[in-house]
Amino acid sequence: MSDNFQVKSNPDLWATLDMDIDRFMNVPPMLTDAFKNIFLSQQNRPKMMAYFDDMVSNIFTGRIQELVEAKAEGRPVIGTFCVYVPEEIVQAANGVCIGLCGGSQGSIADAEKILPRNICPMVKSAFGFKVGRLCPLFQAVDFVYGETTCDAKKKTWELLDHYVPTHVMEIPQMKRERDKRLWVEEVRVFKQAIEERVDKEITEEDLKAGIETLNRKSEAMQRLNNLRHHNPSPISGRDMLLIQQIAFYDIPERYTAKVHELCDELEQRIADQSFAATQGTPRVMVSGTPMALPNWKLHNIIEGAGAIVVNEESCIGTRYYKDTIDTGGASMDQMLEKLTERYMKIDCSCFTPNDDRIDQVIKEYRDSGAEGIIDYCLQFCHTYNIEAVKLREACAKEGIPFMAIESDYSPEDVGQLQTRVEAFLEQIQE
Amino acid sequence: MSDNFQVKSNPDLWATLDMDIDRFMNVPPMLTDAFKNIFLSQQNRPKMMAYFDDMVSNIFTGRIQELVEAKAEGRPVIGTFCVYVPEEIVQAANGVCIGLCGGSQGSIADAEKILPRNICPMVKSAFGFKVGRLCPLFQAVDFVYGETTCDAKKKTWELLDHYVPTHVMEIPQMKRERDKRLWVEEVRVFKQAIEERVDKEITEEDLKAGIETLNRKSEAMQRLNNLRHHNPSPISGRDMLLIQQIAFYDIPERYTAKVHELCDELEQRIADQSFAATQGTPRVMVSGTPMALPNWKLHNIIEGAGAIVVNEESCIGTRYYKDTIDTGGASMDQMLEKLTERYMKIDCSCFTPNDDRIDQVIKEYRDSGAEGIIDYCLQFCHTYNIEAVKLREACAKEGIPFMAIESDYSPEDVGQLQTRVEAFLEQIQE
Repeated sequence: MSDNFQVKSNPDLWATLDMDIDRFMNVPPMLTDAFKNIFLSQQNRPKMMAYFDDMVSNIFTGRIQELVEAKAEGRPVIGTFCVYVPEEIVQAANGVCIGLCGGSQGSIADAEKILPRNICPMVKSAFGFKVGRLCPLFQAVDFVYGETTCDAKKKTWELLDHYVPTHVMEIPQMKRERDKRLWVEEVRVFKQAIEERVDKEITEEDLKAGIETLNRKSEAMQRLNNLRHHNPSPISGRDMLLIQQIAFYDIPERYTAKVHELCDELEQRIADQSFAATQGTPRVMVSGTPMALPNWKLHNIIEGAGAIVVNEESCIGTRYYKDTIDTGGASMDQMLEKLTERYMKIDCSCFTPNDDRIDQVIKEYRDSGAEGIIDYCLQFCHTYNIEAVKLREACAKEGIPFMAIESDYSPEDVGQLQTRVEAFLEQIQE
Repeated sequence: MSDNFQVKSNPDLWATLDMDIDRFMNVPPMLTDAFKNIFLSQQNRPKMMAYFDDMVSNIFTGRIQELVEAKAEGRPVIGTFCVYVPEEIVQAANGVCIGLCGGSQGSIADAEKILPRNICPMVKSAFGFKVGRLCPLFQAVDFVYGETTCDAKKKTWELLDHYVPTHVMEIPQMKRERDKRLWVEEVRVFKQAIEERVDKEITEEDLKAGIETLNRKSEAMQRLNNLRHHNPSPISGRDMLLIQQIAFYDIPERYTAKVHELCDELEQRIADQSFAATQGTPRVMVSGTPMALPNWKLHNIIEGAGAIVVNEESCIGTRYYKDTIDTGGASMDQMLEKLTERYMKIDCSCFTPNDDRIDQVIKEYRDSGAEGIIDYCLQFCHTYNIEAVKLREACAKEGIPFMAIESDYSPEDVGQLQTRVEAFLEQIQE
């Protein structure tokens, strides 16, 4: 499998998307190498990973072709950077939602020509992809829908709007009744914006169907994450991270079906005692900020050090799929309210207070059978960074081994992180 | 004057405030030295500066005694960190509002024992004052009222609440009708919190009087800033910064009277051609993040390099006093709405979009007769840092010399800043 794998190129297709093709030509071979090293070097992977490997292989070609075709059919293709943007509504309009969070060091220099250097690498990477015309997914979207979940994103969207039409959804900072009222209105405005784009009203049936499609996707991801919690785990943390990253650019129905097929295989693997790690392998849960594709740095370090990652409490992780929406007998207004309530359960550190997240992290730690938590903070992400103080206190109280890591996408701190992770693994094995 | 000046000490008073007296004993002499070097070394200062120098002399003693006496009378003493907290309402309840933003390097190590290092020095300094028990103003307040204007503050208030009761006011992130509705409700809740503290309802007359007291203070500060714009300026930028800093801890009525006395003197100085700088001295406007007492670093560098600062577009500056509230014939509800509208005119970079601020900066640049803008950003302040990109573009379009500086409270970058400021002054004199 490893020898044949290749992230594919299609300069003709890219030319239609106003890419910087000369520079971008280097990306697929680099991603091919990284993927082979980090993923295909693993032993005894589930066979169904072939589908997800294939999604990586086609990320700049086959999937882009699908987006181009969707646009040709008049379907809206919308880029997002946050799990608070309600994709059920995009789905209801037969549109496509693509997560555009940047996980690559390669576009950061482009961003730093304009943005300050000391902001979050995810924001810089995404912004750099656009200004450098270095991401076919970004080039393929009609417009992007940002939000106000952190200072760096909120202000960067003002600049991004010079390069691509950028709408912004206001996410309140508390979760009281008056915040909910504001939030429901934002959801309504979002719905109107999508309706204007497709020049067609979203009906109750449309929205119900959109919600149910994404409910099914969430349920599949929940099933997968529950299976993965088995001790020993039937699938590696790296593979799980990849699957959760692909959730942000695959077609929901297809993805859901493939996740269930993988789940079936994992059930069989558990029955067959065929695992991704041996009994006694240290089990680590990762919490904190999202890891956008191809940010595999921390998982690679943890699993390279002989442990296994058994849960991601993250937006690219459980925060994305832990809740579903009940659509039973609901009118449009009721559905929009229930939808908003689902979003209000996502416990991003942008909220104050956000103690539900502390409880959720502890719960996921217990559920996943982890033996320690590594809290991951993207560099300069003030909200998760400061919230880690409370999380550390809560873990100390519960006797949970805890380590906080702040890192960016550069390879410079890998050696130091390896040392810290190894020391942490020694600690939890004592 | 210089020889007699001293920031006073009163360990007996501090002992009643649970201060870390041993450590704090070093602070008044250090502040005395800094103040002598930066302020009292200036030539031909207005005589009325004696009052403001005296306010510095008494910052840890006489003014604290006044706060202790106010509390003994049952008056609430409330600490704040932001000009969005409506002090008119505190004034209406006969309370005292004290600005607690930290401007000192001395408390940062205390904060960094708990908080991440790479957040705003103002937040760290304030938090460190409290955890180190190193600020008599902080020790004297009943409770603090934080807000959600930036990621670092919003999340730090959750931790500060362990040390002092900390309420948080939600400030929305946009300025549309639905944001205003949320904001007015926040103002109402703030009013209720103050009423509960004093166990007395705030009447229409109370609120009207409170608003008018602070209107008069704003008008005095406007008058002062207009006089200061005279070319040549009758008062230095350092002295103006100091007066604007003292606005956050002096008694409003007394302060207003003294500012007017100073204005009278400045009018006479202008008539007498007695200035703080000679004709032809380069005139610099500073925009950006606030400079909390005793953060005099940038003004000292600019004026030490032979220029004069002629305007501060800042929260400790024009943003604080540029607008007043019309109370004519208004009911309680109308007044709360008008009050909220006044606050909505404050153009902090926490809002998106915030283009009114760009226009306001250009307007103040013209009004002040400045020849260049130095935009000051507290280190790791993402919103002002990113907004500087737009400000730079607008200045380029208008042909306004512009330089952006990001700095903290450490002395380490002073040499580098001096070099950059000198180069900027050469540029604007060409």
